[in-house]
Amino acid sequence: MIIEGDVVTLAFAEIGWGWGGQLEIAEGLDAFLPERGLTRPDMLSWVTAFVFDLDGTLLDSVYQHVLSWREALEGRGIQLSVWRIHRRIGMSGGLLTQALLRETGRPLSSELAAELQQAHAEAYARRIDQVRPLPGAQELLDDLTDRRVPWAIATSGRQTSAAAAHKYLEIPDEVPVVTRDDVEHAKPDPDLFVEAALQLGEPITDAVVVGDSVWDLLAARRANALGVGLLSGGYGEEELVRAGAYRVYADPADLLAHLDEVGVR
Amino acid sequence: MIIEGDVVTLAFAEIGWGWGGQLEIAEGLDAFLPERGLTRPDMLSWVTAFVFDLDGTLLDSVYQHVLSWREALEGRGIQLSVWRIHRRIGMSGGLLTQALLRETGRPLSSELAAELQQAHAEAYARRIDQVRPLPGAQELLDDLTDRRVPWAIATSGRQTSAAAAHKYLEIPDEVPVVTRDDVEHAKPDPDLFVEAALQLGEPITDAVVVGDSVWDLLAARRANALGVGLLSGGYGEEELVRAGAYRVYADPADLLAHLDEVGVR
Repeated sequence: MIIEGDVVTLAFAEIGWGWGGQLEIAEGLDAFLPERGLTRPDMLSWVTAFVFDLDGTLLDSVYQHVLSWREALEGRGIQLSVWRIHRRIGMSGGLLTQALLRETGRPLSSELAAELQQAHAEAYARRIDQVRPLPGAQELLDDLTDRRVPWAIATSGRQTSAAAAHKYLEIPDEVPVVTRDDVEHAKPDPDLFVEAALQLGEPITDAVVVGDSVWDLLAARRANALGVGLLSGGYGEEELVRAGAYRVYADPADLLAHLDEVGVR
Repeated sequence: MIIEGDVVTLAFAEIGWGWGGQLEIAEGLDAFLPERGLTRPDMLSWVTAFVFDLDGTLLDSVYQHVLSWREALEGRGIQLSVWRIHRRIGMSGGLLTQALLRETGRPLSSELAAELQQAHAEAYARRIDQVRPLPGAQELLDDLTDRRVPWAIATSGRQTSAAAAHKYLEIPDEVPVVTRDDVEHAKPDPDLFVEAALQLGEPITDAVVVGDSVWDLLAARRANALGVGLLSGGYGEEELVRAGAYRVYADPADLLAHLDEVGVR
């Protein structure tokens, strides 16, 4: 929701506003806003939409994904420590297999890449019954719907993974669920978030992107959106801050309790 | 191994040496050492023993433990996000169940605690075949043995968990493997590390404690040992540094490649 739309445009033009530089220019805004009869809370209400990552952000599914990748890799004789897989979760499957094999020094043929992704999808499908929605996920989405803040889901996973979203969350028909199949490049490229914003009809630069991995936050930064981190995927807080998180919350329930901090009223 | 033992004692006496204050007093040492014909590398060779945590430090078993606790909790109707369990791994099972239940607001009877620990042990036993030694674990231990640096293993787990150490690692008979059953309080109390050092016949204050969790590092600090962190349990680097890690390495292989940095020659 843009409140005081004209003034926002003016602010953009006059002080080169961008989420990425929010903290740096906050001081400038404090001087700028009163002249136009605005206060900082007005400024924060510029947020027009939310784009959510899925695994680790709305669903408690990261550890199942991690062990599914581990199973897929080991099935092809590739030994890799579980924590290294964990730290790559959230990337596209293609990038992830490439990155992991680089650590083992093995070349990645496109056949092996396809095989690994297929094996992961099968292993994950066997674990999907252990997946749960994260605390507050449904309440947060419902709250945004009630406030008429448009929201979307954008996941590096393919349709198999996205199916879990519909299994564990109530998602209104009009909500876009963008998957790896819809874009050319997945995270950490910004395509998924940009596509989600396009489908919402909102500028991605006014959107809050919520994710649990450094790849979400890197992609958010590249999309020039405001990145917000959640600890519920198992990353450490500082990793998320370093990757560009404007704020870090424990999980969707904690974000819901602090929505005002990210510009929603 | 104490090199120049008398001078070390002298240094202790004169400048109140302790690992905890190492960085703070390094400057004082730089002035103190040359007077006695010593240089900083001599100082670092005071390390007399290594005490290793097991899960996430020598064995790639953290994610299996995490999902085993999840299964045990859910079997008793207790829903908890997986990442919250992950962040408690490394504590004693008793503390862990207490901490987790506090987050859910449920009281913990001693019957429920015993039930949960039993269910976890059974669930972990079913997953033990998926456990692997971490890269470089055996090589690191062998290297220390070759250099005649005494080492021990100290785990918050009970015998069931410790059995995995003997399954996946070659451990000489004379190496102490201290478990939860051997001490009154497990990590983050210092008892396990102190007991390991006692069994080695070396002062814990001259030992390097290697662990992957903040509980290891907290216990190391309380034992006044030098804590070294590994990322291989899935914690973030800054979490470990904040908890008191003097250095953080990726895994045992990475620590082996940098042994000189922690005072071994």
